[in-house]
Amino acid sequence: MSQQLDLFFKPRSVAIIGASSVRHKAGNDVIRNILANDYSGEIYPVNPKGGEIMGKKVYPAISDLPHGIDLAVIILPAKLNPQAVRDCAAKGIKTMVIAAGGFSEVDKEGELLQAELERAVRETGVRALGPNTSGHVSTPCNFTSSFFPVGRIPRGHISYIAQTGNFATHTMRYISTFENFGVARVVGLGNKIDIDESDVLEYYSSDPETEAIFVYLESLKSPRRFIEIARETTRHKPIIMLKGGATASGSRAAGAHTAALASDDRIIEGALKKAGIVRIYKYSHLILAAKGLSAMPLPRGNRISFLAPSGAMLVTMSDMCQKFWNLEVPTLEEKSRRRLQEISPSYIRMRNPVDIWPSAMVHGMDFAYQEGMEAVLADSNIDAVVSILLINDETGVPDLQRIVDVARKYPQKPVYVAFSAEKKHMEPAKEFLETRGVPTFPLIEDPFEVLSILVQCRKYMDRH
Amino acid sequence: MSQQLDLFFKPRSVAIIGASSVRHKAGNDVIRNILANDYSGEIYPVNPKGGEIMGKKVYPAISDLPHGIDLAVIILPAKLNPQAVRDCAAKGIKTMVIAAGGFSEVDKEGELLQAELERAVRETGVRALGPNTSGHVSTPCNFTSSFFPVGRIPRGHISYIAQTGNFATHTMRYISTFENFGVARVVGLGNKIDIDESDVLEYYSSDPETEAIFVYLESLKSPRRFIEIARETTRHKPIIMLKGGATASGSRAAGAHTAALASDDRIIEGALKKAGIVRIYKYSHLILAAKGLSAMPLPRGNRISFLAPSGAMLVTMSDMCQKFWNLEVPTLEEKSRRRLQEISPSYIRMRNPVDIWPSAMVHGMDFAYQEGMEAVLADSNIDAVVSILLINDETGVPDLQRIVDVARKYPQKPVYVAFSAEKKHMEPAKEFLETRGVPTFPLIEDPFEVLSILVQCRKYMDRH
Repeated sequence: MSQQLDLFFKPRSVAIIGASSVRHKAGNDVIRNILANDYSGEIYPVNPKGGEIMGKKVYPAISDLPHGIDLAVIILPAKLNPQAVRDCAAKGIKTMVIAAGGFSEVDKEGELLQAELERAVRETGVRALGPNTSGHVSTPCNFTSSFFPVGRIPRGHISYIAQTGNFATHTMRYISTFENFGVARVVGLGNKIDIDESDVLEYYSSDPETEAIFVYLESLKSPRRFIEIARETTRHKPIIMLKGGATASGSRAAGAHTAALASDDRIIEGALKKAGIVRIYKYSHLILAAKGLSAMPLPRGNRISFLAPSGAMLVTMSDMCQKFWNLEVPTLEEKSRRRLQEISPSYIRMRNPVDIWPSAMVHGMDFAYQEGMEAVLADSNIDAVVSILLINDETGVPDLQRIVDVARKYPQKPVYVAFSAEKKHMEPAKEFLETRGVPTFPLIEDPFEVLSILVQCRKYMDRH
Repeated sequence: MSQQLDLFFKPRSVAIIGASSVRHKAGNDVIRNILANDYSGEIYPVNPKGGEIMGKKVYPAISDLPHGIDLAVIILPAKLNPQAVRDCAAKGIKTMVIAAGGFSEVDKEGELLQAELERAVRETGVRALGPNTSGHVSTPCNFTSSFFPVGRIPRGHISYIAQTGNFATHTMRYISTFENFGVARVVGLGNKIDIDESDVLEYYSSDPETEAIFVYLESLKSPRRFIEIARETTRHKPIIMLKGGATASGSRAAGAHTAALASDDRIIEGALKKAGIVRIYKYSHLILAAKGLSAMPLPRGNRISFLAPSGAMLVTMSDMCQKFWNLEVPTLEEKSRRRLQEISPSYIRMRNPVDIWPSAMVHGMDFAYQEGMEAVLADSNIDAVVSILLINDETGVPDLQRIVDVARKYPQKPVYVAFSAEKKHMEPAKEFLETRGVPTFPLIEDPFEVLSILVQCRKYMDRH
């Protein structure tokens, strides 16, 4: 099984069935994407017109292709797909990506066509992704089968399974332009006539490139198998899942685009827990939690410290830690407390969380944040630290390299940053910190929400 | 009462007791702030050294001031404040802002000093804000008593009451640089020896410049009075409140900076509900909900529609609407459904929420978003609309003016925007839309969270 998907994630050669020389056509964009990612394998475009596309010789028919190609990406009108699958199989191609929509997600006729396609796949014994998929991404192999113009996708150790076209397309585009983390593999499952979430999860489970798995699913094709694989996987890798269609409203909306069945959400809830899968609800957390995990380790526990330049932030975040996030804001060791007190005016009794303002008033931003962060990071009662940075021209711009340095000194503890800043400083600070391994978050609550998710991952992992 | 606070919010003249000619000193920054906001009243700096500060004649002592000044901003070391209050009162000054910290928030000695200050205020009959306050803002009068360099503060119709120095300072700086909405009044309450949350709320309640009131409090000085005024106020103006110290953790953190008492949170919960005050928990919502309210009316009810370029977004947001946000995503009127269907391929059955992608594929982004938004805005089943805009070079940049135009056509319904965009387009799109009255939000969940808050405001208002 895993070996078959190796052809899929590490193809040494790929045929593009339905290649096009016309820019912005899917059959053209897919080649452009592959080249943009510096794929080093062979590319075999197929189009009855022949000629050349982007310097590659075009084969008029599948039957003209050489034997032994690893993967076919089929970008043809729905009706032509069953035959294309058979033709590719006849050429010894064992794995395929079937991009076209127009199957069971559309109407009765589409359902019949999908049954025919399924038959072609089963009878030829090939492994197929789709139909109705936006493709997949495999950065260690510099490859993507996405026909949406995604550009170069940065490499990392997060892998996604998504039952939606959006992930391998717009969301990847958002991640690769807005965020500073990379991915290992991304699979858009589509209609799942063959390869399903369990197959992909199994591959990710033993994939050395994948350190954490994020899943968006609207339905499970083989729930029992998925849960079983997940239970094994979460011993060593976190799985974080957003289940679409958790409510009647969501199921209705799901009906509109994938014909997924509404399942009993409580059964799912129980099964996920048993499997050690951390359930999330926000779409944005598919991105923010991945970002948190990319640069930093899982927190060892839920005991956090945070630094803020405002009493109100200290108070309200403490409230939310207890009330919503299951994060503890414990008492510091006396030595840490004293260290904080040393840099602060005597009128304020320093504690956890850390009011950084008085210290900054006395010693300046640079020193206050550096010393304050180090004091709590060195504390054995603390598993993770959130630093809310005050940055503006008037109070000063803290030396961000110092933040990076102190975070690096404690590589076993996550350090996350949010801002209380003037606009012009936020974007450059985000860029500076993230490209040096310190993740930042848009609103001050976001790093806490992410920690809350990751603490659960750790808890499930420790349970085994 | 209200009249007395008129001097405070509309001072025709102000004395700065402890004015300084040294840049970055509080006694200097306060004057700089006042000038930066184009205050047109008289400014009377007081400093024993005399001379001039920023072109203003300096009076060596309070006793040298002319009679009849409306407001004194006292920026002196803690110990000098009681006498300064008496001296100002002797000159006929009836309202004061007492900036200094070093009172009950610090130690026993500070408590004694605060008692002395309180006596001075009571015996002279003046109205005083503070001590330990970061000042107040009154944009209709172009005035601020903040000694933190806030720059020019944009005018609007949101007013804040905050028991924290942060609001009139860093958070105002964040709002005025990052967000595109303005405020009417902001008060940092400080230690509340005289003017408290109830006094300010009463003023805001009948203040024609204030259309919505946001409150951050850690403790209530006169809970019964506050709740009574609030109950009257929420008949015509929403009050949204973040109560710091809702948990033991939060109370401990509050102890660190304002000596507020932990109150029984359930009693507060009940009292707020009775008063029609909408309770929030996220600090960020003090800003985002204000932004939502600034540009758009309150939604008439909780029935929303939203448009997104991704099935997964449609599904997960629908789930959250039902599960967490108390927002309904109702069936559209048949005429609206047909209108959506007309612009979409026949294979997809259009409904609420609106999958805008197929239509955009056929008709382009501009038309799809414009027509899609108009279809749901015209629907009498819909109270508010969230549009998640897909913006990138490959799929195209929708004509944002059309979004503005369609929103303006339905001024009784809030239209909020979030993005699924390439990085480079997000900031310019935010700027374009917000400066034309359409608020945007950082993550796709944020506009829904804000709507959820505002729907509650409406519900409380309708209850009366």
